[in-house]
Amino acid sequence: MAINRLTQQIQFIIEIDRLKQILRQTLLIDGSRRENSAEHSWHIAVMAFTLAEYAPEGVDIFHAIKMLLIHDLVEIDAGDTFCYDVQGNHSKAEKETQAALRLFGLLPLDQASELRSLWDEFEAGETATAKFAAALDRIQPLLHNQQTQGGTWRIHGIRRDQVMKRVAPVETGAPELWPFVLQLIEDCVAAEYLKEPAIEIQG
Amino acid sequence: MAINRLTQQIQFIIEIDRLKQILRQTLLIDGSRRENSAEHSWHIAVMAFTLAEYAPEGVDIFHAIKMLLIHDLVEIDAGDTFCYDVQGNHSKAEKETQAALRLFGLLPLDQASELRSLWDEFEAGETATAKFAAALDRIQPLLHNQQTQGGTWRIHGIRRDQVMKRVAPVETGAPELWPFVLQLIEDCVAAEYLKEPAIEIQG
Repeated sequence: MAINRLTQQIQFIIEIDRLKQILRQTLLIDGSRRENSAEHSWHIAVMAFTLAEYAPEGVDIFHAIKMLLIHDLVEIDAGDTFCYDVQGNHSKAEKETQAALRLFGLLPLDQASELRSLWDEFEAGETATAKFAAALDRIQPLLHNQQTQGGTWRIHGIRRDQVMKRVAPVETGAPELWPFVLQLIEDCVAAEYLKEPAIEIQG
Repeated sequence: MAINRLTQQIQFIIEIDRLKQILRQTLLIDGSRRENSAEHSWHIAVMAFTLAEYAPEGVDIFHAIKMLLIHDLVEIDAGDTFCYDVQGNHSKAEKETQAALRLFGLLPLDQASELRSLWDEFEAGETATAKFAAALDRIQPLLHNQQTQGGTWRIHGIRRDQVMKRVAPVETGAPELWPFVLQLIEDCVAAEYLKEPAIEIQG
């Protein structure tokens, strides 16, 4: 065993502990506090094998789980950008690319390159596996917002059209789960957890 | 798609959110607060593929990751028992078995049985995969205690012999990592993060 190699791996394991301190906008289901990105990553990884039967052909669940476990690591340096923050999302890509370089770069070269490629695949969202992973990443906060009677949506005055745009990847990434998502949004609008878009009067 | 089946799976996904509120004795690496069992499960799952090259023959890493992601779920009902709490550990098994019945029982029968069998395998610690998973579950708090200058060990006055007993599963579960663990413990004793056992004077 190359000691140097293990030292690098342990350094990475120690460094990623900081993901436990990156707070997302999402609330825990009992509403007691904001969720952090480490426990969120755990939750969607469990979802990946619990909901594996709905994965379209070509999805590799093990690959999806690895992707979900590391997809938020860049937030250690780049922070979590609220998905409805238009301005914040403009500068996000550059900050996250720098973060990926530093964080995955703590690992031996072969592993750094493996994790970078997993993350790139998730970000590009082109493979069946990346699309399925993204779908789960969108469904989980939806459940949290429903269970917290509108949670983040109410705090930030989020509308149905914004949520529809946000969850759109589910339609292609996990089409078998799409009717469930549509119904859940309907229910949330009916319960007034989620606002209808304002109607613009054309003059 | 059977709606009932998906409803059960979603109910399980909602219920396990509570693992994020189960606090372990371990501190985060910056010492700011206690770690919860969901983020701990995430951390060791990432460790499983980062350290996969040290897994003995016969270890299935995907299987190990699933095991690590669900191994603490029973704490939702049974709570986290501090590993050095002798009394607490007597009543632990019965409480955890009840918890497994209820929690995995939220899922459709085939999945309930799959998760129960994953958990049983981890608890029995007989297969190469369960032994490797257990080794990672022991190494992670060791790193946290070293990084927090003795963290939980200092708070509870834990001695080297207690830690040695606790990490013993690494020797068989991940023998390639055993020299690293022994060295880390030596370093922690030298730095006085960890106490030597009291010497008993025979009268």
